[in-house]
Amino acid sequence: MNITVIKVGGAIVEDEKQLRQLIDDFAEIEGPKILVHGGGRRATKVAAQLGIESRMVGGRRITDADMLDVVTMVYGGLVNKHLVAMLQAKGVNAIGLTGADMDIIRSHKRPLKRMEVDGKEEMVDFGFVGDVDRADGKTLMQLLRQGAVPVIAPLTHDGQGNILNTNADTMAAETACGMAAEGGNVTLIYSFEKRGVLANPDDDNSVIPVITHRSFEEYKADGTISGGMLPKIENALNAIDRGVAKVVITLATAIDGNSGTIII
Amino acid sequence: MNITVIKVGGAIVEDEKQLRQLIDDFAEIEGPKILVHGGGRRATKVAAQLGIESRMVGGRRITDADMLDVVTMVYGGLVNKHLVAMLQAKGVNAIGLTGADMDIIRSHKRPLKRMEVDGKEEMVDFGFVGDVDRADGKTLMQLLRQGAVPVIAPLTHDGQGNILNTNADTMAAETACGMAAEGGNVTLIYSFEKRGVLANPDDDNSVIPVITHRSFEEYKADGTISGGMLPKIENALNAIDRGVAKVVITLATAIDGNSGTIII
Repeated sequence: MNITVIKVGGAIVEDEKQLRQLIDDFAEIEGPKILVHGGGRRATKVAAQLGIESRMVGGRRITDADMLDVVTMVYGGLVNKHLVAMLQAKGVNAIGLTGADMDIIRSHKRPLKRMEVDGKEEMVDFGFVGDVDRADGKTLMQLLRQGAVPVIAPLTHDGQGNILNTNADTMAAETACGMAAEGGNVTLIYSFEKRGVLANPDDDNSVIPVITHRSFEEYKADGTISGGMLPKIENALNAIDRGVAKVVITLATAIDGNSGTIII
Repeated sequence: MNITVIKVGGAIVEDEKQLRQLIDDFAEIEGPKILVHGGGRRATKVAAQLGIESRMVGGRRITDADMLDVVTMVYGGLVNKHLVAMLQAKGVNAIGLTGADMDIIRSHKRPLKRMEVDGKEEMVDFGFVGDVDRADGKTLMQLLRQGAVPVIAPLTHDGQGNILNTNADTMAAETACGMAAEGGNVTLIYSFEKRGVLANPDDDNSVIPVITHRSFEEYKADGTISGGMLPKIENALNAIDRGVAKVVITLATAIDGNSGTIII
C-alpha cells in the first residue's frame, strides 16, 4: 500500500486562511493518507485565559496536570475535531485520533532530564509529556483499508490511564515507521514555513533538492546545514533507516510531495 | 451481532469515584459495546472561567460560537479522551468519536423554535445545536467487528464543516437504531440516578420492571408516569419501534442490563 503521512504545524492549523489551503491540498492527495497535526499557540492562549501559566524549557512545554487538561481539550478536541469536520465537508472520510484511541501510539512519561536552564544545570521534570514507545502500524493500515483518513492529535497515552502531551514530529515519524514495518510504502512529508532545506537561509530559492546519508555528512561538515535543521534531518534519516521510503521537507502550501527537499 | 449501547450522563463522568465504577462495570460487559457520554457541568465551568456566559432554555444549552468551542474542547477532548485512556488501561480497546469522525452521525442545525421564555413567546435560536438526521450503523458495526469499542461524545456535524452540540440521549438512540437497521440485535441502556422508572417517585424500591406500549398508555392515563419521564419513555418506545430489541432504564452503577426498567 502506498501511504502518505503529512505533518503540519500548529501555527498553520490556527491560521484560518492557511488552514483552508491545507484542507484543500490534503483533500487532493490520492490514496491512503494520514494527517498529523501539531499543537500551537491556542493552548497557551486558553491556558492564560484559565489562569494557567505556560512554561517552556528547551522549546518544550512543561505539562503539569492543569496544562494537560488544556492540551487535551485544545489539541484533542478543538483543533482535531475542527479539522475532521472541515475534511468531511470536502468528502475526506476523516477520523480524529489520539494515540490512546485504539491504542495506536503508546508512550511513557518522560523521565527527569538534566538540562541547562537559565545558565544553571537543573533536573527538569517535563510533567505529563510522553516519549513514544511504538505506533501500531497494523491498526492504522486496517483503518486506511476501510477508507478512513486518520487525523492525529499530538497526544498519546501510557496504557495506565494517562494521556501524555507528545511531540507531533515524533508521532508522525513513528506512525510512518510503524506502517513501513507492516509492509507499507510510506512517504513522510514534514510541512514547514520554508520551501525546503535551504543551502542559504537567506535565499528561499536555494532549496537542496535531495539529501542522502552521505550528502548530509558533507553538508554538516561544511556548515551548509546547521542549528535546528540538524535534528530534523537526523530524524528523517532515522525514519529512512527504519523502512520509510521517502521523507520530504516542504512548504505547508506545497504538500503534494513534488517539491521541497527529498531525503532518501 | 448482539450489541450493547450504554448512555451515561455527564454528571457521572465528572465524578471521579462514580467514573471509576462506571469504567469497571463497562469493562465487564461482554461482546460488542458502545459508550455514549453526556456533557455535564464541566463545560459550564470552563466557559465561566473563559468569561463565556452559559444560557439554558428549556433545559437545553444555547450554543453560540464561543460556547461551541468550549463544548468541542470539553466533551470531544477532555471528557472523551479521559474515558478512552481509562478504558484502555482496563484492556478495553476504546476509540473516542464524535459524529464527525468517519461521518458516523450527521445532523442539521436546529431551526429557530417558538418557545415560551420567562412567560413570553419567543423565537429561540439554539445556535450550534444539531438535530440528528442519521447514524451510520454500517460503519459502527465495522468498527465493532474489528474489536474497537466506540466512546461517543455528544457532538455531531452537519457535513458542511460545522461541529454541532447534540443531545447524548438522542445520539444513543440513533446509534442503536442505526445498528438495528443493519441487522444488529441491540440493547440500549440509559443509565440514570434512579434504579429505574419508579411507580412512586419517593420509593426507590418501586421500580416498574417492564413497560410496553400498552402498559405505558395505562401508566400515563392513571398518572403513575408523568413529567420528564414521559419523553424518555416515548423515545425508548420509538427506538423499539425502529428495531432496537430492548431498552433498559437503570442506575448508573448497574449497567449490566439485568436490573432497572425494561422497555420492550
